[in-house]
Amino acid sequence: MDIVKDLKWKKGIKLDRFVAGLANTGYQGVELGRASEVIVKMKRDKAKIFMTFTSNMVTSGLRGFFAQLIKLGMVDVIITTVGGIEEDIMRATGEKFMITSFNADDVELYEKGMNRIGNLLVSNDSYARFEDTLTKMLGEIYKKKKRIKPSELFREIGLMLNDKDSLLYQAAHNNVPIFCPAITDGAFGFHLFFFQQNHDDFIVDIVKDFSDMLTCTSYDERKGIIALGGGVSKHYAILITLINGGFDYGVYITSQTPYDGSMSGATTDEAKSWGKIKDNADAVTVIGDATVYFPLAMMRALEVLSREGLIKNG
Amino acid sequence: MDIVKDLKWKKGIKLDRFVAGLANTGYQGVELGRASEVIVKMKRDKAKIFMTFTSNMVTSGLRGFFAQLIKLGMVDVIITTVGGIEEDIMRATGEKFMITSFNADDVELYEKGMNRIGNLLVSNDSYARFEDTLTKMLGEIYKKKKRIKPSELFREIGLMLNDKDSLLYQAAHNNVPIFCPAITDGAFGFHLFFFQQNHDDFIVDIVKDFSDMLTCTSYDERKGIIALGGGVSKHYAILITLINGGFDYGVYITSQTPYDGSMSGATTDEAKSWGKIKDNADAVTVIGDATVYFPLAMMRALEVLSREGLIKNG
Amino acid sequence: MDIVKDLKWKKGIKLDRFVAGLANTGYQGVELGRASEVIVKMKRDKAKIFMTFTSNMVTSGLRGFFAQLIKLGMVDVIITTVGGIEEDIMRATGEKFMITSFNADDVELYEKGMNRIGNLLVSNDSYARFEDTLTKMLGEIYKKKKRIKPSELFREIGLMLNDKDSLLYQAAHNNVPIFCPAITDGAFGFHLFFFQQNHDDFIVDIVKDFSDMLTCTSYDERKGIIALGGGVSKHYAILITLINGGFDYGVYITSQTPYDGSMSGATTDEAKSWGKIKDNADAVTVIGDATVYFPLAMMRALEVLSREGLIKNG
Amino acid sequence: MDIVKDLKWKKGIKLDRFVAGLANTGYQGVELGRASEVIVKMKRDKAKIFMTFTSNMVTSGLRGFFAQLIKLGMVDVIITTVGGIEEDIMRATGEKFMITSFNADDVELYEKGMNRIGNLLVSNDSYARFEDTLTKMLGEIYKKKKRIKPSELFREIGLMLNDKDSLLYQAAHNNVPIFCPAITDGAFGFHLFFFQQNHDDFIVDIVKDFSDMLTCTSYDERKGIIALGGGVSKHYAILITLINGGFDYGVYITSQTPYDGSMSGATTDEAKSWGKIKDNADAVTVIGDATVYFPLAMMRALEVLSREGLIKNG
Repeated sequence: MDIVKDLKWKKGIKLDRFVAGLANTGYQGVELGRASEVIVKMKRDKAKIFMTFTSNMVTSGLRGFFAQLIKLGMVDVIITTVGGIEEDIMRATGEKFMITSFNADDVELYEKGMNRIGNLLVSNDSYARFEDTLTKMLGEIYKKKKRIKPSELFREIGLMLNDKDSLLYQAAHNNVPIFCPAITDGAFGFHLFFFQQNHDDFIVDIVKDFSDMLTCTSYDERKGIIALGGGVSKHYAILITLINGGFDYGVYITSQTPYDGSMSGATTDEAKSWGKIKDNADAVTVIGDATVYFPLAMMRALEVLSREGLIKNG
Repeated sequence: MDIVKDLKWKKGIKLDRFVAGLANTGYQGVELGRASEVIVKMKRDKAKIFMTFTSNMVTSGLRGFFAQLIKLGMVDVIITTVGGIEEDIMRATGEKFMITSFNADDVELYEKGMNRIGNLLVSNDSYARFEDTLTKMLGEIYKKKKRIKPSELFREIGLMLNDKDSLLYQAAHNNVPIFCPAITDGAFGFHLFFFQQNHDDFIVDIVKDFSDMLTCTSYDERKGIIALGGGVSKHYAILITLINGGFDYGVYITSQTPYDGSMSGATTDEAKSWGKIKDNADAVTVIGDATVYFPLAMMRALEVLSREGLIKNG
Repeated sequence: MDIVKDLKWKKGIKLDRFVAGLANTGYQGVELGRASEVIVKMKRDKAKIFMTFTSNMVTSGLRGFFAQLIKLGMVDVIITTVGGIEEDIMRATGEKFMITSFNADDVELYEKGMNRIGNLLVSNDSYARFEDTLTKMLGEIYKKKKRIKPSELFREIGLMLNDKDSLLYQAAHNNVPIFCPAITDGAFGFHLFFFQQNHDDFIVDIVKDFSDMLTCTSYDERKGIIALGGGVSKHYAILITLINGGFDYGVYITSQTPYDGSMSGATTDEAKSWGKIKDNADAVTVIGDATVYFPLAMMRALEVLSREGLIKNG
Repeated sequence: MDIVKDLKWKKGIKLDRFVAGLANTGYQGVELGRASEVIVKMKRDKAKIFMTFTSNMVTSGLRGFFAQLIKLGMVDVIITTVGGIEEDIMRATGEKFMITSFNADDVELYEKGMNRIGNLLVSNDSYARFEDTLTKMLGEIYKKKKRIKPSELFREIGLMLNDKDSLLYQAAHNNVPIFCPAITDGAFGFHLFFFQQNHDDFIVDIVKDFSDMLTCTSYDERKGIIALGGGVSKHYAILITLINGGFDYGVYITSQTPYDGSMSGATTDEAKSWGKIKDNADAVTVIGDATVYFPLAMMRALEVLSREGLIKNG
């Protein structure tokens, strides 16, 4: 059994030493340390890694980190909500998001055309320009294909972008599929709808995409999940592995607690009752804001894996 | 400015008196009282009422209450996730869900074929029988229509059910559309996928459904939202009203707090920065488990509205 | 094993029927139903009932409910923080607390001399008048006794008050001791300090009070705890029973979750590892705002106990 | 207005670069960056720094970090609960605390004599040996002084310890007072009580200690607070500055949210309504587990201050 050790600062302390220290400090630091270790193990074991996150994380600076992780070969399948797709495209086409505070004056922001997401802001202008961008892209894609799966659509868009910090760009260039179980739930939906008004034979086939999700892995393959936040993206990933035997490794990082029976707060233990995560899996649930906890756990894992030569270009 | 009043028990105390008392007690009791009053106001004002909830609430006994609310004319549009649709169909076809504890032994549950959702259980057997039920239903529906919108699909299913406590049954019989922005994110998705394998011309058109969402209300109409929990169902509802001028009344009940920038924790204030909720709207955010808070707020509202003759059959 | 039942509204629904319904609804409703039942059992079993709460609950309208519970014989020992004592005295001497919102403008409130506690307000004037009141009371008490225990001090004050809705009044008249492990942590502390400046032989003996806490119960007695919120009041109560064999019944209601290792979030399970709660005890932890959950659980228990003739004057 | 920047990993990344990155990432990362900056500012400004924490943080490895911070001259006044004092003494006299999981089997732990605090364990044996240690210490102290203030008592104990990683040791040797508004709320209370049984003239004078708290700072002095978690230690610190004009700098790190009106969740904004924190103060509230957030914010501040030559021995 591990013992509690006194945490200490040393001048010039590196992140990996810090996370190692937290692992013997207590409470969520311990769970964070465990999460980092599970990530190391899933990679060493050549597991297929599913990463899921909610759209607000793409609004944040994690977006560039996600893109980097794809480039480093740390992610094999991505599942997210459509807001994240939108915001990645905005950023890739030059939009900037601003930082404010959680208790900004919302009526004043409205008057200024600024939309608040926690302590971040996306302007109406960014959305307006996104409309133009996306509409043109849909036109191009329609020329190639009339009945398209969401993951194909995102891949086509990724190939049209020119930003190495873009999630869609890196996913498209590294053959990492992006699944999105609710593609109409955002401005993207508006624009698909307007486009379909003039092109009735344009069909986004979510059922076909489900088939790709199912076949993107197999019963025999080792599988790991890193679920950041909750919602349909988390649920969709764990659903898929149900008929493929469940995950061998699981890391959930969520700010929600399990006491309301929500998917967002569902723990890796609960997942075991379903067979979503194997009963003998290495699995850990960390409670906290993923924008802080995830990069801590992942960057320390990258340091370890880099030393072992297990990451691409790393 | 209201003052704090001492809460007191009286033998045989009725729920509406209790909620009125909480409104002068403090903290979330005050917000709960405000939420109840906003519900009363939106109904008095003949606003179109959008109700959104996550699937775990349908797993709970709120399912029957939701059905009752439709019957009483308290809801005009429903948006939920597909898990809730599944569980409503299960219950309507005789399945029973069990009550356990939040710290049940999940490995043991797995061995018994019981799947845990918080402190509730759904058996593997229920899912197996659901497969048969749904597959037959899809066969019937396919005969009528090949390219179908999710809301049409749910309506067809609702008409095939025979349970007055069913959400889908009451929605179908009362012309309340049910929208679901992520119809493949559940066992439902599996079965649609298997069905499409043998019927490639069977298309579930989510983009068309978005159009129905858009046109189910208008700029001129007064609109209210009751959002229970977060996720895509909450987001989808508030998105729709963006181009229709925003909500006039808003009640959010969520166990998530706003500090991670998630949609689940997003407040009615944040919604104002977007124009999702009008800047002068009557809006309140209650922090807590909706299975307790929502029926308290709503039943007290029903008592008031019933006295005023404003609810159907009530 | 219990099953989930559909919750339904009936016109004129009573609180006890509602809580019984929640017990079969799911999530925190289930735990609330269990909490109510544990309260019924501890009373039926003639257990000595310890009730603990944080000061913010006395600021709220729960204050009058606490006083009523003492009068009804539902509480044998009270442990709280000194802020609650202060606010009970203020209310008993005519002060009024106001209701505002959680996001009131705090700088503006400061300028108006209003102090915010969540969505409640206590004015500077109330504190100023409290100073006069308390200083006079301390003068009277000093004449009688120089070395006094906190619980004696509160009893003396309770006897000087003239308000049946006062916690201190009812406790003094019903021989319910009020313990407070941090008597100087509030305005009360200031006034004790000023008083001692002129009366150096005035000693508040907290160590002696600890002895009374220890002997207010015994190993053989059946014991129950109702802990609302966390902090030192919760900890002090469970500490005391450690050497008296632990609690036989436990109800914790807290808005804090256990993931940071804090006392506020500590569960009844964790308490079992310490022997603070017996391993076979009837114990339940409800997660949520006690201002809503506690009166629901307790009032339903009062209805049951009243029918059984088990409460005084009830 | 700051903009969101893409967070990136670089091999060998240092903690201070990481925290600087989080400050432009979003959500709690932004608040964490702000907290770190406020700590830097309060030190640069030579403010008197009050640090408060709950006892569970001393159970964790933060204990050694707190001791280090005293040694580095980063803390001028400490306020905590008595459990932390106990656990510091245990660790200083050779006890070890173990790491387990949040859902360990509590009945089994009880049988093994292990007491759980979140995912940490303290054994019965450690408590038994603590009794011997403390009783001897009280005997020595009693010879010197019969009427003693809690802060004096802790200082005397600190001088008897021989562990540079001890909070009490470093505080005693660096003239940092430790205040504890609830000295009897723990095993410490038991032992004081037993000691007083045989030494009735032994008095722990908490009222006198309050006077020291009051005079440990002044109206004219610049003051900063770092409050980790909530409870009486947080409240006691902010109370003291009320009559000394309030804090000029404030950093609150808490896992509790403000929606129940509790002190633990009270924000720096709420403090402004009271004048506990000045209306123009640099103040920030970070929501999350202090065992992770606090060392991140503080260690990055230490890196900056060390470069500027503003810390002792650093």
